[in-house]
Amino acid sequence: MYTVLEKGGVCSPKGFKAAGICAGIKVSGNPDMALLKSEKAARCFAVFTTNKVKAAPVLYDKAVLEHAHFASAVIVNSGNANACTGPEGYADSERTAVLTEEVLGLTPKSVLVCSTGVIGHPLPMDKIEAGIPRLAEALHDDASEEFGRAILTTDLALKSIAVEIQTEKGPVRIGGACKGSGMIHPKMATMLAFITTDVGMPIDFFAEFRANISDSFNAITVDGDTSTNDTCIMLANGMSGINYSDMTLSEQGEFRAALELVMKHLAKCIVRDGEGATKLIELKIEKAESHEEALKMARFIGTSNLAKCAMFGEDPNWGRILSSAGSSECQMVAEHTDLYFGDVQVLAGGRPVDCDREKLHAVVRQKEYTVRLVLNIGNASASAFTCDLSYDYVKINAEYTT
Amino acid sequence: MYTVLEKGGVCSPKGFKAAGICAGIKVSGNPDMALLKSEKAARCFAVFTTNKVKAAPVLYDKAVLEHAHFASAVIVNSGNANACTGPEGYADSERTAVLTEEVLGLTPKSVLVCSTGVIGHPLPMDKIEAGIPRLAEALHDDASEEFGRAILTTDLALKSIAVEIQTEKGPVRIGGACKGSGMIHPKMATMLAFITTDVGMPIDFFAEFRANISDSFNAITVDGDTSTNDTCIMLANGMSGINYSDMTLSEQGEFRAALELVMKHLAKCIVRDGEGATKLIELKIEKAESHEEALKMARFIGTSNLAKCAMFGEDPNWGRILSSAGSSECQMVAEHTDLYFGDVQVLAGGRPVDCDREKLHAVVRQKEYTVRLVLNIGNASASAFTCDLSYDYVKINAEYTT
Repeated sequence: MYTVLEKGGVCSPKGFKAAGICAGIKVSGNPDMALLKSEKAARCFAVFTTNKVKAAPVLYDKAVLEHAHFASAVIVNSGNANACTGPEGYADSERTAVLTEEVLGLTPKSVLVCSTGVIGHPLPMDKIEAGIPRLAEALHDDASEEFGRAILTTDLALKSIAVEIQTEKGPVRIGGACKGSGMIHPKMATMLAFITTDVGMPIDFFAEFRANISDSFNAITVDGDTSTNDTCIMLANGMSGINYSDMTLSEQGEFRAALELVMKHLAKCIVRDGEGATKLIELKIEKAESHEEALKMARFIGTSNLAKCAMFGEDPNWGRILSSAGSSECQMVAEHTDLYFGDVQVLAGGRPVDCDREKLHAVVRQKEYTVRLVLNIGNASASAFTCDLSYDYVKINAEYTT
Repeated sequence: MYTVLEKGGVCSPKGFKAAGICAGIKVSGNPDMALLKSEKAARCFAVFTTNKVKAAPVLYDKAVLEHAHFASAVIVNSGNANACTGPEGYADSERTAVLTEEVLGLTPKSVLVCSTGVIGHPLPMDKIEAGIPRLAEALHDDASEEFGRAILTTDLALKSIAVEIQTEKGPVRIGGACKGSGMIHPKMATMLAFITTDVGMPIDFFAEFRANISDSFNAITVDGDTSTNDTCIMLANGMSGINYSDMTLSEQGEFRAALELVMKHLAKCIVRDGEGATKLIELKIEKAESHEEALKMARFIGTSNLAKCAMFGEDPNWGRILSSAGSSECQMVAEHTDLYFGDVQVLAGGRPVDCDREKLHAVVRQKEYTVRLVLNIGNASASAFTCDLSYDYVKINAEYTT
């Protein structure tokens, strides 16, 4: 059994402290540096962007984690991505980590670095260097929100959650925070996500973690772009005194379900807060040949501007959904396909059915609803989450200054 | 040597007549039925949508062309796509062809059918049937514009062109018309294109025709969607008395260049008239590993909403171009990459260069310009053509009614 904690976040599990400050990197004056620290070195799982253009902090973290699978802290800045900044950019990421290690009294290669913001500008190291000791001083164990706010860029809302799982040996917790907004697509986006837990995790749990990413952060799409900085890091410090491998099978199941909830919740928060988004749509592909094909098709439809404009216009435009599915290069047979908006069936065997238009319009006027495309060619299913495409998306992205 | 003819179109080559009328299919009352007829049965090359959901007229034409590679006429309606209409839809396409054959006194299976417009509504056969004899009566040899206008949907502009090539044996001509607007993407879109020529063409020219499509109609992208109805048909009636195979090698080269010009011109007209488009951008990938990779990357960048919003905002946002290239799954090495907006270099070896900001902004304020991404890892290059993403794109597609 697990419960969602009120106002929970990365500091909810035992032994995690955090901080968020205004270091002056953002011209807006909003918080732009954050620190997350575990009392004990934590098992670290991390997944990074698949973009061939990788930002300096991604390259640095990958190099650090190649040798060890532990980390004690993560330092984050928003407002500057430190991407396309050459060897100097890499040196800046490294220097940020080393300074943090010195200030916190940690061993070398125990701090990871994340950056998000504009591309192609050198990291303002004077501000970063001044910020690190201030962050260290500000560290405290009730700072989930401060941390969660300092990692945001064009996000409008804090994205934070924590859950508690009851086990025979006592309670354990999972916390999380992320930032998203524009440039959100499957294979990660300008998305930074941080998961904490006080359970001791075995290294082979990484496969499970990766699978969860594919159904959560990689199943969301705002606009089909993948950024240079995407990162999802999980720290497991074992400070609850309880190890995953010592849990009963059913407790392990509970833990995995809770972790999935945390990751899907954060992923959906990102879509809901997509640039200009007014709606969150779950695109569910059912009775497909394989989970992989279903997920690919769901994600493909999730990037269709035509479908997304129709969602914004509250138009149950099944033709755009079906046409997009057909161009996804996934297996389907038009004549076998059924389609539902919420509970209202609009297509049967590839042809429109005479449905209740009033009921149908009521579905698409909702803030959140599900579109189910039933292929009837297999037994697999998968979902992707997308938002609509609105005037404000264009406005935000046309007016954003390089 | 070839020259572009003033006000040329599908009727410019010898032996082609056309017509366009208002049959009452569109509620707007705009022209919505068109007919193109060759005096003699013409060699026919055709390429259709790759969408797994194919409209009835596409299925019908494919069936007809499986047995013969000749056609005498093409009948087109706009305002209704006859897609997702089941066996009745197929019967409607077939009946449209048969009626046209009867009215024109043609042999069976000599008329092709194209439809474009809303999906999922039965074709209004009463209007189609009443339209066919009126179209037959209206046929004349100066009807390029009437034909070109009647095939349009949300297009704002007529898309028509013709060229004349001088050969030793006399002049020959190529004409063309198309419709495009929304839902335009590589692998064809709600795009209907018609090419005519009075040269006699050998059947093995089809490979050349297909290759031309890949660098013209398949190299354009408005929004990444591929429709159920995309069709490009070329009719070659040989009525100039000159056969391609009898031309000199250099005349054949001229003919191919002229055909490429016609197809690229029509393709660019589609992008320029993309829904809400204010700009036409050529995305040129240079020094790539292969033409295929270069085209794939160019097309991928052409669908990036972030890049397209930046174009609309007249922001030379090289970060979005580079990041999109990096997520295209094509070979590239960020540290080797150069980027130019027009003549202004903004990136050298993956890093920003100190360029003339005034000159740079002058480039992106133009209605049409080229973005060149030089990968420096090979010798191949390719271009894709895209338009910007504007408020009006969202408006048109959010307000469009199913």
